[in-house]
Amino acid sequence: MILENIHTPADVKALDREQLEPLCRELRQFLVEHVSKTGGHLASNLGAVELTVAIHRVFDTSKDRLVFDVGHQCYVHKALTGRQALFDTLRQFGGLSGFPKPRESEHDAFIAGHASNSVSVALGMARARTLQHLDYSVLALIGDGALTGGLAYEGLNNAGASGEPLIVLLNDNGMSINPNVGAVDSHLSQIRSKPAYYHFKKWYRGLFGQHPMENPLYRFNHKVKTSLKKALWPGSTLFEDMGFTYLGPIDGHDLDRLVHVLAWARELQCPVVVHVKTVKGRGYSFAEQNPDKFHGVGPFDPETGLVKKSGGDDFSAVFGRTLAACAAEDGRVCAITAAMADGTGLAPFAKEFPDRFFDVAIAEGHGVAMAAGLAKQGMLPVFAVYSSFLQRGYDMLIHDVALQRLHVVLGVDRAGLVGADGETHHGCFDALFLSEIPGFTVLCPASFAELRRMLRQALFEIDGPVAVRYPRGGEGDYREDRSGAPVVRLREGEDVTLLTYGVLVNQALAAADLLERQGVRTEVLKLNQISPLEYETLAPWLAGKKLLAVAEDAFGAGCVGQRTAAILAQHGQAPEKLVLINLGKTFLPEGAVPQLEHQAGIDAAGIARAVQEART
Amino acid sequence: MILENIHTPADVKALDREQLEPLCRELRQFLVEHVSKTGGHLASNLGAVELTVAIHRVFDTSKDRLVFDVGHQCYVHKALTGRQALFDTLRQFGGLSGFPKPRESEHDAFIAGHASNSVSVALGMARARTLQHLDYSVLALIGDGALTGGLAYEGLNNAGASGEPLIVLLNDNGMSINPNVGAVDSHLSQIRSKPAYYHFKKWYRGLFGQHPMENPLYRFNHKVKTSLKKALWPGSTLFEDMGFTYLGPIDGHDLDRLVHVLAWARELQCPVVVHVKTVKGRGYSFAEQNPDKFHGVGPFDPETGLVKKSGGDDFSAVFGRTLAACAAEDGRVCAITAAMADGTGLAPFAKEFPDRFFDVAIAEGHGVAMAAGLAKQGMLPVFAVYSSFLQRGYDMLIHDVALQRLHVVLGVDRAGLVGADGETHHGCFDALFLSEIPGFTVLCPASFAELRRMLRQALFEIDGPVAVRYPRGGEGDYREDRSGAPVVRLREGEDVTLLTYGVLVNQALAAADLLERQGVRTEVLKLNQISPLEYETLAPWLAGKKLLAVAEDAFGAGCVGQRTAAILAQHGQAPEKLVLINLGKTFLPEGAVPQLEHQAGIDAAGIARAVQEART
Repeated sequence: MILENIHTPADVKALDREQLEPLCRELRQFLVEHVSKTGGHLASNLGAVELTVAIHRVFDTSKDRLVFDVGHQCYVHKALTGRQALFDTLRQFGGLSGFPKPRESEHDAFIAGHASNSVSVALGMARARTLQHLDYSVLALIGDGALTGGLAYEGLNNAGASGEPLIVLLNDNGMSINPNVGAVDSHLSQIRSKPAYYHFKKWYRGLFGQHPMENPLYRFNHKVKTSLKKALWPGSTLFEDMGFTYLGPIDGHDLDRLVHVLAWARELQCPVVVHVKTVKGRGYSFAEQNPDKFHGVGPFDPETGLVKKSGGDDFSAVFGRTLAACAAEDGRVCAITAAMADGTGLAPFAKEFPDRFFDVAIAEGHGVAMAAGLAKQGMLPVFAVYSSFLQRGYDMLIHDVALQRLHVVLGVDRAGLVGADGETHHGCFDALFLSEIPGFTVLCPASFAELRRMLRQALFEIDGPVAVRYPRGGEGDYREDRSGAPVVRLREGEDVTLLTYGVLVNQALAAADLLERQGVRTEVLKLNQISPLEYETLAPWLAGKKLLAVAEDAFGAGCVGQRTAAILAQHGQAPEKLVLINLGKTFLPEGAVPQLEHQAGIDAAGIARAVQEART
Repeated sequence: MILENIHTPADVKALDREQLEPLCRELRQFLVEHVSKTGGHLASNLGAVELTVAIHRVFDTSKDRLVFDVGHQCYVHKALTGRQALFDTLRQFGGLSGFPKPRESEHDAFIAGHASNSVSVALGMARARTLQHLDYSVLALIGDGALTGGLAYEGLNNAGASGEPLIVLLNDNGMSINPNVGAVDSHLSQIRSKPAYYHFKKWYRGLFGQHPMENPLYRFNHKVKTSLKKALWPGSTLFEDMGFTYLGPIDGHDLDRLVHVLAWARELQCPVVVHVKTVKGRGYSFAEQNPDKFHGVGPFDPETGLVKKSGGDDFSAVFGRTLAACAAEDGRVCAITAAMADGTGLAPFAKEFPDRFFDVAIAEGHGVAMAAGLAKQGMLPVFAVYSSFLQRGYDMLIHDVALQRLHVVLGVDRAGLVGADGETHHGCFDALFLSEIPGFTVLCPASFAELRRMLRQALFEIDGPVAVRYPRGGEGDYREDRSGAPVVRLREGEDVTLLTYGVLVNQALAAADLLERQGVRTEVLKLNQISPLEYETLAPWLAGKKLLAVAEDAFGAGCVGQRTAAILAQHGQAPEKLVLINLGKTFLPEGAVPQLEHQAGIDAAGIARAVQEART
C-alpha cells in the first residue's frame, strides 16, 4: 500500500512516477470506503484525484496557497496532507470537516463552502504576496458550476486585468460550461502542451528577464501572437480578453499532462487559466453513471451503490409538493431555484410545470431580482433557496423587492442549524436580516402541516414580500396549531413563559416537561410569524410576564428575543425577568443538529438550565 | 419650441422626422438649464438624449417595459413622459426623484439605483409577459460601467440561455468596456445594419414560423452561420456565446440608425444585445471635456461650467487623507474601492500609493472577498464603500471575513441618510447587519476628529473585522470626545437619558437643549461603538435609568435601541421607561437630510417630542 505511507505532501513528491497510478487507485478506494460509511461529497472528489495528486507533485501547499471554491473537491487533498486517520469522523461533531479549514491544517489556505469566491480570495492573496516581495504560487480551484456565479466573473475580470501571477484551475466536469469552448480549444491545447513548445517558450521568455511585459519587443511579439491566436481559436477569447493566459483543455485524468501544464502555469508568472476536464465520479461506476446522486450522498453500500434510506419525509419535499399543488390551482405561481432543484424539493414542480420553473444556476442575486421582475408584472414567483446562500441576495431583497413592496415569496430552506455541512452552511442569519427589511413578513412553520398552511398563506393571503423559513430534514413530535394566529399557546403554566418559533418548539416543549418535573410551571408560546412583530399582537400573550425566556437558533444580536423584549418594554410591559437563549456570537461547526443544539445550550436541557439559573 | 409641446411619448411619435434633431438640442438645453440649478446626473443624461428619443419613437413605454440600470440616464425619459414641469424640484424633498420610480409614472417600469440588476429584472418581466401570452417588449438599458457587476453577468447568462424575447440596450460610453470588442465589431454592424440584410433576414425567419429554432433546417443554417461569424468576428462571441443576437456597435447619436436597429431588435423576438456607443456629456462642452466632474454634479454656472463651491471638508475626504497617512506609516495598509475612488475620498491615496490601491470596478462582493485574501496573507486591507452598496457584499462579510476573524477594515461611507439620492441610497441597514455578524466591531465617529482617531484604532488597535461608519457630507457642531471609551457622557441630567451614536449626536444635544428649556433635565450619552454591545460596558452608564431614549437613523427592527434595552433587561437593569426613536419601517425618499430627519421624527424637535410624550 502506497497511500498509508503518505503522511505529508512531501511523501507524494518523493514517489516514483510509476507509483502514482496505484496511488490514485488507492485514493479512490479510500474515498469510497470512507464516504460510504459517513456520507459526504463523493463524485466530485473521485473526479479530482489525479488533479490533486498533480497539484501536490508540483506545488507545496504549506507555502503555496491553494484556494478551493465551494470545497467539494478537498477530500483527496485532506488525505494527502496528514488527515487520513480522521476520515472516520468526516462531517461529524468534533471530527474532520467536509470543507477546507485553515484551523485543521496549514495546507488549507482558506475556508470554503459558498460558491464562486475563490478567484477573488486568490487575487487578494496574490497581491499580498507581490506587495510583500515573497515567492509563492496562488491557485484557485474552481468547478465549472461555480463559474455561473457573478462573483466568479467579478474576480476573473479583476484578476485578469491585474497582471498578478495566479493560477485559476478550472475543473470542468461538464456540468455547465458551454461545450463549444472546449471543442474549439482542444487544438490549442495539443499544440501548446507539446514539451518542445514549452521549452522554447521558457527559453524565449528567459531572454526578457523577470518582467518580460516591460520589454517592448516582447510586448510587440506578444500582441502579434495574441491577435493571430484569437483569429484561429476564437473559443479562448473569453478568458484571454480578460487578460488570462489560457491553457487547455487538459485531460484531468492524465497525470503527466497535468503535472506538465501545472509546472508551466507556475512559470508563466501572469494570470493563467488552466482548463481541466474531469469525469465526475471517475473510477466508481455507480458514481460515474449517476454523478448527481453521488454528489452529496448519505451512507451507502459500496458493493451495490445503494444509498441507505434516510427514512421519511422532509421539509423540502413537503414544500415542493405543496408548491406544485398551488401551481396547479393558480397559473401565476412560478418556482425559481439557484441550481438546487433537488435540494429544495422542486424536482416534481420542474417536471409538472416546466414553463413556470426557472433554474437560474448558482446566482442567488439574479434569482431574487428576476423574481422581482416576475412579480412586478403580475406573476407569483417563489424563490426556493438555502438560508445561508440567500445571503448572496441580501441587497436585491431590499432594493428590488422590498422598496416596491413586491409580492415575492421566499422558500427559505435549511433555516437554522443544518448539521454536517457546518459553519458555512448553517442558516442562522435569515431570522435577523429578513425581519429587518421593512415590509417583509416572515413565517416560521414548525411542522409539515404548518409549512403547507403557511406556504398557501404566503402565496394567497399576504401581500408584499413574504419568507417562509423551515429547517433541513424532518419534523419533530410537534404537529400543528390550527389557529393560524401570529402567536399561539401550546401549553399553560404560571411561573415561566417560554417563547420560541420554528422546529425549536420541540425543544421548548421538552424543556417545559423537564421544568415541570422540577416544579416549575411553564407556559410555552410559539410565534408563527417573527416579522412584523407588533405590540398589539404580542401584548395579549406576553405583557408583564414574570419570567420570559426566548429560545431560538439564530445569532444573538438583533434576535427575535431582543426585539420582543424591547417592544414590550416600550409599552411598559417588560417581563420581570428576561432570559435570551440563542447562539450568542459563536459560529457552530459540523455535527448532528442535536449535538450542536446541545453545545449551544438551545436543546431542552440547555433551555431548562437557563431558565432555572434565571430563577435563582 | 418643440419640447414644450411634448406631454406624452405619443407626442414624440407624432413629430416629423426633421423635428427630432431640434428636439434633441432643446432637450440638452433643458437638461443643462435645470441640472445647473438643482444639481444631478448630467453627463450620462446628455449622452443618452438621442437614444431615449429613439426608444420613444419605436416603443410605447406605458406598455413596453423599459428597465433602467442605476438610473443615471432617466432624465430625458422623464422629460418626455409628462414630467418637464417638475424638473425645478429634481432630487428635492417632495419633488421629482433623480431615479426611475413607478409611483411617479406608468412609464417608469421599475425602480433603479443600485447597479447591474436591470437584465435580471427585465428577464423576469419578459418571462411574465410570455407566460401571460401578452404582447409587449421588455428592454434593459444598462451602461458599460454596470456590466462589471457580477449580477449583470448572472442576468445576461440566464437571459441569453432563456431564449426569451428581450432587448439589452448596452449604452457604452467608453467607461469600462474592452475597446477591442467594439473595434472588431464595427464591420459586423455595418453589414448587418443594412436594410436589405434586415429585410432578407425577416423574410427568411418568416419561412420558419413563430419558433424557427424548432425547425431542423433553420437550426442547421443557424449553426453554420454562427460558426462562420465567430471565425470572422470573434469580438461578438461573448454575447453570442451566451445566446444573444448581437447588434452593434451603433453610433448612439445617429437617430435614424438607432430607430432602425431598435425596430429590428424588437422584431427579432429573441434575446438581443444592442450595443450603442455614446459620448458622455455630449453637446455641452464642459461636460464632454470632463464627464467625471459632470457625472453627479452640484449646482453650477451653465455659462462657465464652474461648480458652486459646496464649502468645507467632508467625512470622505477626511477618511481618505487619514488612510493615506496610515499607509505612509505602515506598508501593510491597502485601500480598495468599487469604482468610487472620488466619492470615497481615496483619490489622494491612489495617487500616493498606486501599488496598494485597488479599484475593483462595480463589484462589492469581490471587493470584500479580495480584502479577505489580502488580510489572510498579512496585509491590512481597507474597503471604502457606500453603506447601501455594501449590502452587495453581505454574504462575503460573513463567509469570507467573519468566519475566519480576518482583520478587514471597512470604511462605511454614506452611512445613515444620504439626502438627494433618496430611498435606494440611504445607508440605514449597515448599523443592523454589521452589528449582527459575530466578531464585527462597529465604530461610529461623530466628527472628523473622531473619524481620524477611530480609523487608526480600527487599523492598529482592534483585531478581527472592523467597520468605521460615517455619514455623507460634513460634520455638525459636535467636535470630539477624547476618552475613546465605548460609551461617553456628553451632558448630565437626571430626568431623561438620551442615547445615540454617530452624527445624530448633534440632534440629540439640540434636543437636550429643547428639553432643558421645558424643564426636563436631560443626560446625553454617546456610543462610540455599537458592536459588540456588552452589558459590562453599558451598565456603568445605563443601568436602571428612569427614562431611556435611544435615537438613531436606522430602521427599527434589530436597531441599537432594541439591542441595548434587551441587554439591560437580561440583567435586571431595564429602564423604567423606554423610548426608541428611529426610522421604524419607513423607507425615506429624496430630500435634504434635515428635511428627512424632520419627517422621520429624528431631528431635535422630534426627539424632544417623543421624550415628552413618554413622560406624560
